[in-house]
Amino acid sequence: MTSSVENRAAAFREYVKKMTSFGQALAVLHWDMRTQAPRKGMDARSEVIGVLSGEQFKLATSKEMEEHLEALSEPAVLDSLDHITRATVLECKKEFDRNKKIPADRYQEFVVLTSQAETIWEEARANSDFAMFRPYLEKIVDFQLEFIDYWGCDGKNKYNTLLDLYEPGVTVDQLDPIFATLREKTVKLVAAIAESPHKPDTSFLKKHFPESEQDAFSRYVLEKIGYDFQAGRMDRSVHPFCTSFNPGDVRITTRFDPNDFNSALFSCIHEAGHAMYEQNINPELLGTPLCEGTSMGIHESQSRYWENMIGRSLPFWQHFYGDLLKAFPVQFAGVDVEQFYRAINEVTPSFIRTEADELTYNLHVMIRYEIEKGLINQTIKVADLPAIWNDKMKEYLGIVPANDKEGVLQDVHWAGGSFGYFPTYSLGNVYAAQFTHVMRKELSGYDELVAKGEFGPIRQWLKERIHQHGKTKSPNELVKEITGEGINASYLMDYLESKYTYIYKL
Amino acid sequence: MTSSVENRAAAFREYVKKMTSFGQALAVLHWDMRTQAPRKGMDARSEVIGVLSGEQFKLATSKEMEEHLEALSEPAVLDSLDHITRATVLECKKEFDRNKKIPADRYQEFVVLTSQAETIWEEARANSDFAMFRPYLEKIVDFQLEFIDYWGCDGKNKYNTLLDLYEPGVTVDQLDPIFATLREKTVKLVAAIAESPHKPDTSFLKKHFPESEQDAFSRYVLEKIGYDFQAGRMDRSVHPFCTSFNPGDVRITTRFDPNDFNSALFSCIHEAGHAMYEQNINPELLGTPLCEGTSMGIHESQSRYWENMIGRSLPFWQHFYGDLLKAFPVQFAGVDVEQFYRAINEVTPSFIRTEADELTYNLHVMIRYEIEKGLINQTIKVADLPAIWNDKMKEYLGIVPANDKEGVLQDVHWAGGSFGYFPTYSLGNVYAAQFTHVMRKELSGYDELVAKGEFGPIRQWLKERIHQHGKTKSPNELVKEITGEGINASYLMDYLESKYTYIYKL
Repeated sequence: MTSSVENRAAAFREYVKKMTSFGQALAVLHWDMRTQAPRKGMDARSEVIGVLSGEQFKLATSKEMEEHLEALSEPAVLDSLDHITRATVLECKKEFDRNKKIPADRYQEFVVLTSQAETIWEEARANSDFAMFRPYLEKIVDFQLEFIDYWGCDGKNKYNTLLDLYEPGVTVDQLDPIFATLREKTVKLVAAIAESPHKPDTSFLKKHFPESEQDAFSRYVLEKIGYDFQAGRMDRSVHPFCTSFNPGDVRITTRFDPNDFNSALFSCIHEAGHAMYEQNINPELLGTPLCEGTSMGIHESQSRYWENMIGRSLPFWQHFYGDLLKAFPVQFAGVDVEQFYRAINEVTPSFIRTEADELTYNLHVMIRYEIEKGLINQTIKVADLPAIWNDKMKEYLGIVPANDKEGVLQDVHWAGGSFGYFPTYSLGNVYAAQFTHVMRKELSGYDELVAKGEFGPIRQWLKERIHQHGKTKSPNELVKEITGEGINASYLMDYLESKYTYIYKL
Repeated sequence: MTSSVENRAAAFREYVKKMTSFGQALAVLHWDMRTQAPRKGMDARSEVIGVLSGEQFKLATSKEMEEHLEALSEPAVLDSLDHITRATVLECKKEFDRNKKIPADRYQEFVVLTSQAETIWEEARANSDFAMFRPYLEKIVDFQLEFIDYWGCDGKNKYNTLLDLYEPGVTVDQLDPIFATLREKTVKLVAAIAESPHKPDTSFLKKHFPESEQDAFSRYVLEKIGYDFQAGRMDRSVHPFCTSFNPGDVRITTRFDPNDFNSALFSCIHEAGHAMYEQNINPELLGTPLCEGTSMGIHESQSRYWENMIGRSLPFWQHFYGDLLKAFPVQFAGVDVEQFYRAINEVTPSFIRTEADELTYNLHVMIRYEIEKGLINQTIKVADLPAIWNDKMKEYLGIVPANDKEGVLQDVHWAGGSFGYFPTYSLGNVYAAQFTHVMRKELSGYDELVAKGEFGPIRQWLKERIHQHGKTKSPNELVKEITGEGINASYLMDYLESKYTYIYKL
């Protein structure tokens, strides 16, 4: 490396570090707004967030950034850089190009539109009035098509351009067979479960569970599975989330329903799964845009793995059930671990995605995937969405929502202009099952480890294979390196079939 | 106003708003670090704070700022501005000039020095080893003299230049007679109290007071006196503090000693006093550097007023004593309000300023004032400080510290390079007594209002006369407008003499 390249690279790293500092500060401001800030300070806070976001955007799209990127992305120069700087250049360039290709005034109009649309969507959902939301959604879809024109498309499917925002490199060609597998096998499995006479008793999950005791038990479990409270904390918020400021400060939030045990604990484990990913990223990546999970799907694979494949597994409860009985002796009196395990894995087709069980969840996601793909490829019209939605619910889940509030209007994502995000929820499940399959082969006595509460080897495996790399490896690279094959939904279906065959005695 | 001035003023306001947004964000980052952040995230957080502070400093000292200030501080232009913009220009100009006059490399050396000195001070204090700290303190004093050379001096007293940093416009000419009054009258009063046979029984204050119950009672009291929890919150921290992000979000912190009642509640009231000042600043000042208390002394007048003149008054406890007995029936069994009032106002000469009672506190401050004035005017040498300190303690408080840890090494301020700050603590008491004197004349039945727990008229008075103005009026202006005279310590001494004559039956 020449000394002029060295100087340039050093200046670029310093510049990027400043830019990521804005990101960290903004994350703290958002976290504080959602968990701590008093009501009367909200307006001023939003303004501060606006100012800092604007500055961050300027840094990402400045002339100075452009000069750094031009100098450092020359192929010969790029090759001479260390792998972190190289990946940083590529990541910044991708972001820079994406931002620069949209005319500023059009992007501004889009921001205003989605802000209005979110407000309208709230009212439309409350009134179950799709017609009210429809013109906004139509404009938002038009904007997606316009953005795809600016950004360009791989020539295969316009939707790929949007997928790439959330799951870099993953395409419709990969997703179609995945959802085909999920569709075919899940629909059958759901039907078989519906016919099974062996329904679990879930009544004991609906007893009274005081919030403070749920909180204490959740913290106990998180500590045991390895969420590091010295590098994080857990607070309350309306919607649970995980946010990372740096690998030494990754926070989660939760909410407790005192009349439903089957909610907060698993949500805590889910968020802790996200958080353990971020806590275990190589700290050398801090100060670059690579210091975060590589994609929404891989992130979701970590949360779903801990929530469902560990947290809703029998070995897990063989370990923790004694502790649970100590924490809630009255509520679970006379319930054995087997009954408890079956109860927390009840399958019931339902209308609301966020409340769906592990099995039917993928069907909810699939409906949105099919609709998004149709909208973006202009084979589906916004006007027809309520009918299409209800038809698909009928076909896949066997139930039809009574109104659009519990149907097509339930999610905020489209109002916010997010298209291409939904599939990552199911990709997370698919990845998690693939990774578990490998882990079972590589970690001897995997189930016994879980049953003994020895999560260290699992965490170590996840850290080495996935977490530490942050954004330096793409989802497809990770899957290939870890599993030796491509994305494959059959592991997930094998896992689900085996699990529910046992629970429902199919 | 010409349209070019209008445009310039609008651009300047926008620019300043951006700068203050950085200030608000930094305040959140600091608050979070001191109350919420996990241990392992501290280093990265400090870096983010460093980056944002650097950006804020750049904004305050940029070419763009210079151009705005040059254009807008032309006398004719300045006169044509609305009063908020005018005061903003003057405030920014003062800050700009102050920053620009110090060569950047010298300031950088000073920052490094104080950072080292704080670390050394901690060790020196732990070992009661002044010799270890001495060379650092000598360099820090030299820097103060150098800064005064850069900044210039009013020709009367070099120390005035430093006072102006914390109490704009207040000078040694004003402080000397104030401290002369305090010295003469307080020393006599302390001696009389020492000889009084009527010492209060304080044993019941040292019983066990569970933290959660102290917390609940403190919140109850703060709510009653008018700290707005919808525009703030109270958390725990090692050292209590108040921080304002905007008038709708002013937070306080506290700590509880379960074996001492005479600590947390009054500290909470103190911080709430600071907070109510900030909560009641005219919201139109938000986005300017005027949206904060006008000086350290005026700020302290608000915290001390609520803590001592209200919170340690007999009428206050005539109102709250029933609630206190309900909260702590066992601890205060057999204690009447009169006994309680006398106990919380016990006077005992002691070594540590931060633990001093209301009366002797000013003597602690005076010692530091006399020493600082001597150091800056080069009539006192750093090497002689331990001996001078101990002599003054002997003379004013009648006690001599056994070592420098409880003597000259006790405070961090000098290690941090803060000279001119200490006097504002006593100024706060002096201002508060002057304001109370006026309030008593203007609010009929003042004592009865307090005894009935009706704090609304008092808050309204403070808001109208002091709080709303933020930094648009200087301390001297406020005192003159409110009291019709200058700063005058005799009101404070009248109040203290009357209070302790009653308590100690002098």
